[in-house]
Amino acid sequence: MSVDHVSIREVGPRDGLQSEDPIPTADKIRLIDALSATCLSRIEAVSFVHPKAIPQMADADEVWASVRRDPEVRYSALAPNVRGVRRAVDAGFEEIEVVVSASDTHNRKNINRSTDESLEDVAELVELAHGNGASIEVIVATSFGCPYEGDIAPSRVAWVVDRAIADGADRVAFGDTTGMGTPRRVRELLDAVKPNYPDVPMLLHFHNTRGTALANVLTALDYGVTEFDASVGGLGGCPYAPGASGNLATEELVHMLHDMGIATGVDLDALIEVARMAEGFVGRELPSGVLRAGPRTKLTPIT
Amino acid sequence: MSVDHVSIREVGPRDGLQSEDPIPTADKIRLIDALSATCLSRIEAVSFVHPKAIPQMADADEVWASVRRDPEVRYSALAPNVRGVRRAVDAGFEEIEVVVSASDTHNRKNINRSTDESLEDVAELVELAHGNGASIEVIVATSFGCPYEGDIAPSRVAWVVDRAIADGADRVAFGDTTGMGTPRRVRELLDAVKPNYPDVPMLLHFHNTRGTALANVLTALDYGVTEFDASVGGLGGCPYAPGASGNLATEELVHMLHDMGIATGVDLDALIEVARMAEGFVGRELPSGVLRAGPRTKLTPIT
Repeated sequence: MSVDHVSIREVGPRDGLQSEDPIPTADKIRLIDALSATCLSRIEAVSFVHPKAIPQMADADEVWASVRRDPEVRYSALAPNVRGVRRAVDAGFEEIEVVVSASDTHNRKNINRSTDESLEDVAELVELAHGNGASIEVIVATSFGCPYEGDIAPSRVAWVVDRAIADGADRVAFGDTTGMGTPRRVRELLDAVKPNYPDVPMLLHFHNTRGTALANVLTALDYGVTEFDASVGGLGGCPYAPGASGNLATEELVHMLHDMGIATGVDLDALIEVARMAEGFVGRELPSGVLRAGPRTKLTPIT
Repeated sequence: MSVDHVSIREVGPRDGLQSEDPIPTADKIRLIDALSATCLSRIEAVSFVHPKAIPQMADADEVWASVRRDPEVRYSALAPNVRGVRRAVDAGFEEIEVVVSASDTHNRKNINRSTDESLEDVAELVELAHGNGASIEVIVATSFGCPYEGDIAPSRVAWVVDRAIADGADRVAFGDTTGMGTPRRVRELLDAVKPNYPDVPMLLHFHNTRGTALANVLTALDYGVTEFDASVGGLGGCPYAPGASGNLATEELVHMLHDMGIATGVDLDALIEVARMAEGFVGRELPSGVLRAGPRTKLTPIT
């Protein structure tokens, strides 16, 4: 299947920053505004979670109230429950994400409930969102493996998807929560879920924990997948997942796609500058090769 | 094309260590011996270069005289010229690599000669090697792009290959010297060179400078390529190439291949331990995700 355009959702401001040391509200606003200016099509801006659970997102309302909202960008927020979805719609978000882990053990570790119990809430969250003009995406965590349980059967992930869509979810996403995704696991998962819902948007979220993120993207492109998450500079990981490291860096994804002739709309040079800014905000070297070396088109002067 | 077995050449002891600060001879011997014990099929052990050019390899004869030579492992040495090939055959090597850069500018920066001038030596090097029971592999550097010239036309690489094979080279390899390789460039190169020489072994050498190494491997597997270089822990880069960073880490390559059901013969757990040892030798954190996080099969205890 030939893909000529990919829609990237930038998750650095939320997924990325939630596993870094907290940074000032003003820096979050600068980061989101700078990302909007790179012509990314989508940005996950904040999450509405309890500040004791994720202190990094305690200022979500303030951040969102102050960012420059580019009419060309789709902004979204993550919400864990009814209270979070209520806050998100009150703040004016039209796209809201909720997370359910395919692994019972991971879901229990995360929010002390079984996968089935979490799925029971989806209909209510959908109703609340739809009633307020917002859509709901269900992110299926540990879709490519669980750090506690190991392999997760694609049929189990498909069952979660079936439940979510039956309850009204508008979109689904598959999270490679601790970087256990490989080309083989991507194929097996997409074989199990993609043919069933040709009209439901499906997004993939890879971590580069074991170096496979872009190989996974390449595999998914063969299946016609056109939506991917990525995090500027490779910000973040997953605070609940031992051994997790870096999200796929947005500039590495854009760099490979553009070289393949696949459009993203993103200004890569501007994005690399934002990655450099993000590195300054978090005060550590971020794991992005394209940030370090520049794109392959950046030549060395002959001296 | 379905590949069920890949032959990996471990290049950490030579390509890797030549761009690290020099380490003691005894550590090099320990490293090679430990690598042999992981059941790698091939190891590039040393290079016979001028000690002023590459002081890291000044003890090549001593290292090679002391390593335990596993009869199941193919060992090789890199040599830049007649003198180097002579030293390699005198030391008893049966596989010798020489490097020619497809980029004139890179070749001149590297050894102050044009690509054409370097190619003029191949016949003599082949004669010397063959006369002493050794084979010659021509490594085509900058096959996927040159940091000075930019894109290198696949037809230019094919011309280098034609010349090398006409002059008796037994094998060819394609070096992604500064990590400019991408799935697109791999496809374009293999389209240009692979069909012409179905019986000549072709090996690919990727750097992970921009995160694409395993995506490149995946692309090459589709072409039936079964030979790859990799460097334990991701040791090394290229001292002549500005912006170059890390070779593809051997354990990341083995990890992905095994998950895909492709055999390498390598004991991954043992290899990760060698990567840890190599990290101790060079005294810096190596850029290997599988070394940091362990393989995807390594689970977290449920507490």
